[in-house]
Amino acid sequence: MPASPIRKLVPYADKAKQQGKKVYHLNIGQPDIQTPEVALNAIRNFDHKVIEYSHSAGILSYRKKLTKYYQKHDIDISAEDIIIGAGASEAILFALNTCLDTGDEIIIPEPFYANYNGFAINAGVEVVPIFSDIQSGFALPPIADFEKAITDRTKAILICNPNNPTGYLYSWEELETLREIVKKHDLYLISDEVYREFCYDGRKHYSAMHLKGIEDNVILIDSVSKRYSACGVRIGCMISKNREVMNTALKFAQARLSPPTFGQIAAEAAIDTPDSYFEEVLGEYLARRNVVVECINNMPGAYCPNPSGAFYVVARLPIDDSDKFCQWLLEDFDFQQETVMLAPASGFYSTPGRGLDEVRISYVLNVNDLRKAMTCLEEALKVYPGRTV
Amino acid sequence: MPASPIRKLVPYADKAKQQGKKVYHLNIGQPDIQTPEVALNAIRNFDHKVIEYSHSAGILSYRKKLTKYYQKHDIDISAEDIIIGAGASEAILFALNTCLDTGDEIIIPEPFYANYNGFAINAGVEVVPIFSDIQSGFALPPIADFEKAITDRTKAILICNPNNPTGYLYSWEELETLREIVKKHDLYLISDEVYREFCYDGRKHYSAMHLKGIEDNVILIDSVSKRYSACGVRIGCMISKNREVMNTALKFAQARLSPPTFGQIAAEAAIDTPDSYFEEVLGEYLARRNVVVECINNMPGAYCPNPSGAFYVVARLPIDDSDKFCQWLLEDFDFQQETVMLAPASGFYSTPGRGLDEVRISYVLNVNDLRKAMTCLEEALKVYPGRTV
Repeated sequence: MPASPIRKLVPYADKAKQQGKKVYHLNIGQPDIQTPEVALNAIRNFDHKVIEYSHSAGILSYRKKLTKYYQKHDIDISAEDIIIGAGASEAILFALNTCLDTGDEIIIPEPFYANYNGFAINAGVEVVPIFSDIQSGFALPPIADFEKAITDRTKAILICNPNNPTGYLYSWEELETLREIVKKHDLYLISDEVYREFCYDGRKHYSAMHLKGIEDNVILIDSVSKRYSACGVRIGCMISKNREVMNTALKFAQARLSPPTFGQIAAEAAIDTPDSYFEEVLGEYLARRNVVVECINNMPGAYCPNPSGAFYVVARLPIDDSDKFCQWLLEDFDFQQETVMLAPASGFYSTPGRGLDEVRISYVLNVNDLRKAMTCLEEALKVYPGRTV
Repeated sequence: MPASPIRKLVPYADKAKQQGKKVYHLNIGQPDIQTPEVALNAIRNFDHKVIEYSHSAGILSYRKKLTKYYQKHDIDISAEDIIIGAGASEAILFALNTCLDTGDEIIIPEPFYANYNGFAINAGVEVVPIFSDIQSGFALPPIADFEKAITDRTKAILICNPNNPTGYLYSWEELETLREIVKKHDLYLISDEVYREFCYDGRKHYSAMHLKGIEDNVILIDSVSKRYSACGVRIGCMISKNREVMNTALKFAQARLSPPTFGQIAAEAAIDTPDSYFEEVLGEYLARRNVVVECINNMPGAYCPNPSGAFYVVARLPIDDSDKFCQWLLEDFDFQQETVMLAPASGFYSTPGRGLDEVRISYVLNVNDLRKAMTCLEEALKVYPGRTV
C-alpha cells in the first residue's frame, strides 16, 4: 500500500519546524474555518447517561433531517436511501465492497484523491485511471477514453465533483456524458460530492443524483467534514435509490455496529447552520482561490487553471520531480525563515511518471498567510536546483 | 454476506412491540450501565472552535495516556505501538488487512463473534473454525485440532478473551498453548480483549501481550465500548510491538484520515474513571450472571456453563432450531404480554448446522428485569412446538 502523498512528508515538516522554520501547510484538506456554533452547542448539551450505539445505518432522526437538506439541492430521497458512515472514507468502502467483487475494475479520471487507492486495495478492486489534462483545466476526459478503458471486469466509474485534487466542477453536459456511458454499459456511477457547497463564479453544482434513467446505478458519497469544517466528527454517508445495493451495504454497516454517536449529533444539529455562514465561508474561499491562481500564474514557468470548486488547485511548476521539490522545500529551503508544505501531485496519479511537475495546493489558510506562502514558493522556484525551464 | 444474528430478528421485535408486547432485549451487547461522568463531562466541556482531524493513529495525548492504562495491566507498550480505530471493528479490519492477503486463512475457535465473518469477507480472508464445546464450557480446543486446521495458507489465529459469545475466560495455560502453536508455525495471534475488565470469581485476565517470545506475532485488539459503557464513541485500538505490522496498518489508518475526535476526547478522559466505578459495575454483572446461569440450569432440558468473563452466556435449550425459536418468541409467544429477544447461536458458528439448539444471552438488564425475562424463557420452553426433549 503506497504512503499518502499528503502525509509522507510530515517527518520533513517536523524537522523544518525543529530548525525554527515557519511552515505554511498547504498540503492538507483541513480547513481553518470555524465549525458552526449550532453543531458545537449540540455536543456541549449532550445529556444522555449512556453513550449508546446508534442504528447501524445512522440515527433515524438525523437521516430524516438529512433528506430535507438534500431536498434543498433537488435530491429527492428518503431516510432508507441513506447509510451514515465514519466519514466519506467508510461510505466509499461500503460502496466498493457492495458494488464490486475482488478483481473487478473501477474507472477513475486521474489525478484523483489519493486515498481512493487505499480504499481500492482494501476492497480488492483494480483502479483503471483515465487521463484528465491540466491544459483543459482537468475537464472530463473524452468519451472515447472511457470506452477504451472499459473491459468485462469494469463495474463502476468513480468521480469526485467538485474535484479533489483539481477543484474542477463538472458541467451538466459532462454529467450527461457520464450518464450515457453508465447506461450503455450498465455500470455503477459512484459520485463523491463532499465539496458540493464550494462552487464559485456563479457556477451551480449538479449532482449525479440529478441524472434521469440511471437511478439504480448512482451511488452518492457525501460527508459533513468540509461542509461544516468538522473533519473530526467522522460523519459521511452513502446514498442510493438501489434497494439491493443498500441492503448489502447495510450488512457491512451492521458488521461494524454503528457510526460515531457524537459526530451524528453534531452533524444533525449542523443542518440548521444559517445560510449566512456559507455566504461568508464561500466569500473567504473565493478570495483565497483568486490569490493562489493569480500568484502562481505570475510565477515564470508556472501554470494553474482557475477551478470553480472545492478548495484545491493542481498547479504545474517548472520542476523535475514534485516529490523531490516538496521535500527540498522543507529540508533545504527557507525564505526569511519561512517555507511551504505542498502535496506532490505524483501521488494523485496512478499512472507512473505522471504529475512529476505538478503539486496540489489546498487553500486552507487566510489570505495574508496564503500570500506569504506564495512568496515562499516563488522564491523557492528561483533557486531550486531541479528547475527545468 | 450473512445477516448479523443479533440484528436479523429486529423486524420481528418491532412487530411484537406494535402488538403491545414488552420485549426484554437480551440479544445485544449494549450495556445499560451509565457511562462514567468524567467521560461525559469532557465532551460537555469541548472548547475548540474547529472540530479537526486528529492524527491518523489517534490523538497523541490519548495514546500516551493509554500506555499508562495498559501498564496497570502489565502490558508494556509505547504510544507508537497503538493505532486508534473507530471501535474494535475498524481495528480488526486494520489487523486483517495488514496481516493477511486475499485467500489467506485465519483460525477462530467457534462459536465466535459473528461480525468476524463480516470483517473476514471484507478483508477477503477465509475463516477456518475449530470447534469449542459447550460441555467443556467452551474451553480452548485441543492443540491437535489447531494442528489439523493449519495449512500453508494459515496466517493467523484469532481469539476473543473473555469471549463473546460464550463468556469463557482463557487460563494462562491455554494462552501458553496458543503461544506454542503460534511460535511453531510463525502465525499472528490476534487477541480481542475488549471485555478485559469483566472477569468474575476472582479470576485474573491474562493478555496475549503477556506471552514471552512471540512479541512480534501478537496483535491486541481493544475497545472502550464495554469498558466504559460507551459503545457510541466508536473508539478502539490495534496494538502491536511489530513495527512492520504497525507501519502497514498506519497506511490503512491514513487512508481513512482519522478516528472520531469526540470519541477520543471522551475515551481519554475515561481513563481517569475511579476504581469504585468498576467495582460497582462488576458486582452488578456478577449478580446478573448468577441469575441467568441459575435460572437456565433450573429449566428442564436446558444447560448453561458458568463462564467467568464478559456479559454473555451461550445456553443449550431443548429446541429444534434456535433461529425458528427466537423468531417464534417474538411472533407467536407472550407470557403476561411479555417476551424475550435472544440471539440464535447458529449465527456464531461458521460450520453449518452447529448451534441450532443454542442461544446467546447478553445479561445487559438489571436483575429484576433479567428474572422476568428468564421467566418468559422458561414459560416459552414449556409450550414451544419445536421442543425436542
